[in-house]
Amino acid sequence: MLLKLILPEEDQILSAFKWTEENLGHVHVLVNDAAFVSEELLTEGNTEIWKRSFDVNVVAPCFTTREAVKIIRKNDIKGHIIHINSVAGHKVSPVPKMNVYAATKHAITALSETLRQELNALGSKIRVTVCRPFVFCPGLVVSEMTVLSKDISEERKKLFEVRPILQAEDIADGVVYVLSTPEHVQVLELTIKPVGEPH
Amino acid sequence: MLLKLILPEEDQILSAFKWTEENLGHVHVLVNDAAFVSEELLTEGNTEIWKRSFDVNVVAPCFTTREAVKIIRKNDIKGHIIHINSVAGHKVSPVPKMNVYAATKHAITALSETLRQELNALGSKIRVTVCRPFVFCPGLVVSEMTVLSKDISEERKKLFEVRPILQAEDIADGVVYVLSTPEHVQVLELTIKPVGEPH
Amino acid sequence: MLLKLILPEEDQILSAFKWTEENLGHVHVLVNDAAFVSEELLTEGNTEIWKRSFDVNVVAPCFTTREAVKIIRKNDIKGHIIHINSVAGHKVSPVPKMNVYAATKHAITALSETLRQELNALGSKIRVTVCRPFVFCPGLVVSEMTVLSKDISEERKKLFEVRPILQAEDIADGVVYVLSTPEHVQVLELTIKPVGEPH
Amino acid sequence: MLLKLILPEEDQILSAFKWTEENLGHVHVLVNDAAFVSEELLTEGNTEIWKRSFDVNVVAPCFTTREAVKIIRKNDIKGHIIHINSVAGHKVSPVPKMNVYAATKHAITALSETLRQELNALGSKIRVTVCRPFVFCPGLVVSEMTVLSKDISEERKKLFEVRPILQAEDIADGVVYVLSTPEHVQVLELTIKPVGEPH
Repeated sequence: MLLKLILPEEDQILSAFKWTEENLGHVHVLVNDAAFVSEELLTEGNTEIWKRSFDVNVVAPCFTTREAVKIIRKNDIKGHIIHINSVAGHKVSPVPKMNVYAATKHAITALSETLRQELNALGSKIRVTVCRPFVFCPGLVVSEMTVLSKDISEERKKLFEVRPILQAEDIADGVVYVLSTPEHVQVLELTIKPVGEPH
Repeated sequence: MLLKLILPEEDQILSAFKWTEENLGHVHVLVNDAAFVSEELLTEGNTEIWKRSFDVNVVAPCFTTREAVKIIRKNDIKGHIIHINSVAGHKVSPVPKMNVYAATKHAITALSETLRQELNALGSKIRVTVCRPFVFCPGLVVSEMTVLSKDISEERKKLFEVRPILQAEDIADGVVYVLSTPEHVQVLELTIKPVGEPH
Repeated sequence: MLLKLILPEEDQILSAFKWTEENLGHVHVLVNDAAFVSEELLTEGNTEIWKRSFDVNVVAPCFTTREAVKIIRKNDIKGHIIHINSVAGHKVSPVPKMNVYAATKHAITALSETLRQELNALGSKIRVTVCRPFVFCPGLVVSEMTVLSKDISEERKKLFEVRPILQAEDIADGVVYVLSTPEHVQVLELTIKPVGEPH
Repeated sequence: MLLKLILPEEDQILSAFKWTEENLGHVHVLVNDAAFVSEELLTEGNTEIWKRSFDVNVVAPCFTTREAVKIIRKNDIKGHIIHINSVAGHKVSPVPKMNVYAATKHAITALSETLRQELNALGSKIRVTVCRPFVFCPGLVVSEMTVLSKDISEERKKLFEVRPILQAEDIADGVVYVLSTPEHVQVLELTIKPVGEPH
């Protein structure tokens, strides 16, 4: 069963985990896929926006992961933590006005490896995967959010029309492959770009 | 149809491509999976062994790729080049006596990106993938070569018995996933480790 | 003239910049060297501690940089922004209980490149440097903070005594070199480890 | 005393080491700074040219290092090995027709870390440094070779005139800094770009 949560605050997340546990059973797989980005220069940016970027893109996956790992370990489940990150987790693309976005994604790259090392040290068999689709701004994977988004500038919208683009299914296919591997196989990184992407 | 070649020399490779073209039809997919490693310190190593390491691990995939790309482009095929590399393509693991092995694998990492950029610039839709299984020495993926190898020291053989290990099928499953994606989807990197691998 | 600030809050930082401007003249060089780390597992960590880690280690350098760049650009100064980061900005070392520390340092790595690209796009000649000393926990560069710190466990203190260690002067020497280069030379990264460091 | 060698073949290098030992005394510092690049596509390249690129850029620094380390260890000298690499050792820049150049430079990045780990394991205090100036093609550091080179195309020569450029002294200054650090300080990486470099 797939449960989709779009909840920014920790207490809401904790309640959701509790509700899931009581009504649906234990968590086996956690897929973190939150992303927030504003369209501003780094040298003119707003401190509150930066804090929010780190809260949503980095700290929230930390506590959802902490909660999921607790349940998975307590119930001796062969669980899996998947972070949907971005190619910006490896490389800063020359797209202007992304301010701290690449920084938040580099942070997720480090957190995945920190988590893997820590689970190893604890003797846990929980698997950790980072999926890195190329989404140089949120929305370059075609999604509801993209279509509905009111905050994207005309300039950035034009990028949609001329650049190759991944579909949400392309990433979902990757996740299905990752989850289908045998228990001893850990797909650490899966990096996906549309063919023809220049960067 | 799958054709497996174990041929070290360029003229043999060229003949094999010619034979394939005449008898089986055009190449659609090339999977480069050669690897040579000797068990020596870098500071006491043998120059001819190092040259051979680069010839087999790096230069051979360059000319097989060149030949495959020629055929694929000439026949307007939606082709795919897959390099089976290693996690040593990203990170130098603290395993002694691997001398230039990690260097050859870092080279493949760079060559894949060079190839992707060049194909983009040529307007080609050929896809490029680097698969990075964790094989800290050849043989840590269980394969015929491993079982037959006479050159591996007792010390290194012991590592086999205590460390988690990938099977050849685990990597083959990854390649199948990569090839099964839609035409516009390019899996750039697929990094796989056995669960519990300490490094 | 060197002004050393240890101020966690944005309004204090803004006041300090204002005071500096009025009393000492324009800022030419900014060296960001804040770091906060707690000693906890990632899978048992505290959300507020994580937020504080990102606020101190990442968001604070963002707004000090923003303020310094404003002054430098307004006064047409050949300025320099230096981030004292860590080797944890590149690689997650196998040191336990560092939770989000490596993530905050990877974020600084990305921010430095984002800043460099943005300044280039603005036509600015401000230089950006990341200095990466090996400090696997704050304090492994011998500093006042280290000696005074009351939060470090006995276990971690023991690491001090057996591992090779950098002195604060070693990093200062690096900064002096970076600042001494001609105007057209940008030292992007300077990574320093003590000889004999195992990781 | 500085001895500059431009010798492509191993036996010549070995003779030069021998001559140095007999006439000038022990080697203390080795600076590897060879680079060969041809201007060709990877998908149309020449196998012999690729082999030569790896021989000159990678295998030659391996055997000069092996010889220097032997002398340094035998005489209990506090020696230093410096590889002048390139930013192409980290990142594949979008400059066309560089074929295996970035691959050879990624190989040097790996070899430096392999060497550092091996010297650590041997208990040696020899220091290893990688200096990474931005030279997107040989010659972008202004040098005699650049001025004399007859193999560079007109197209590439034009790049000289419009792009910011490092001088040979800028890199020499970096090497002087690296060598001036105290014995326990190991500058692992020093990455230098001209201000305004777009990539």
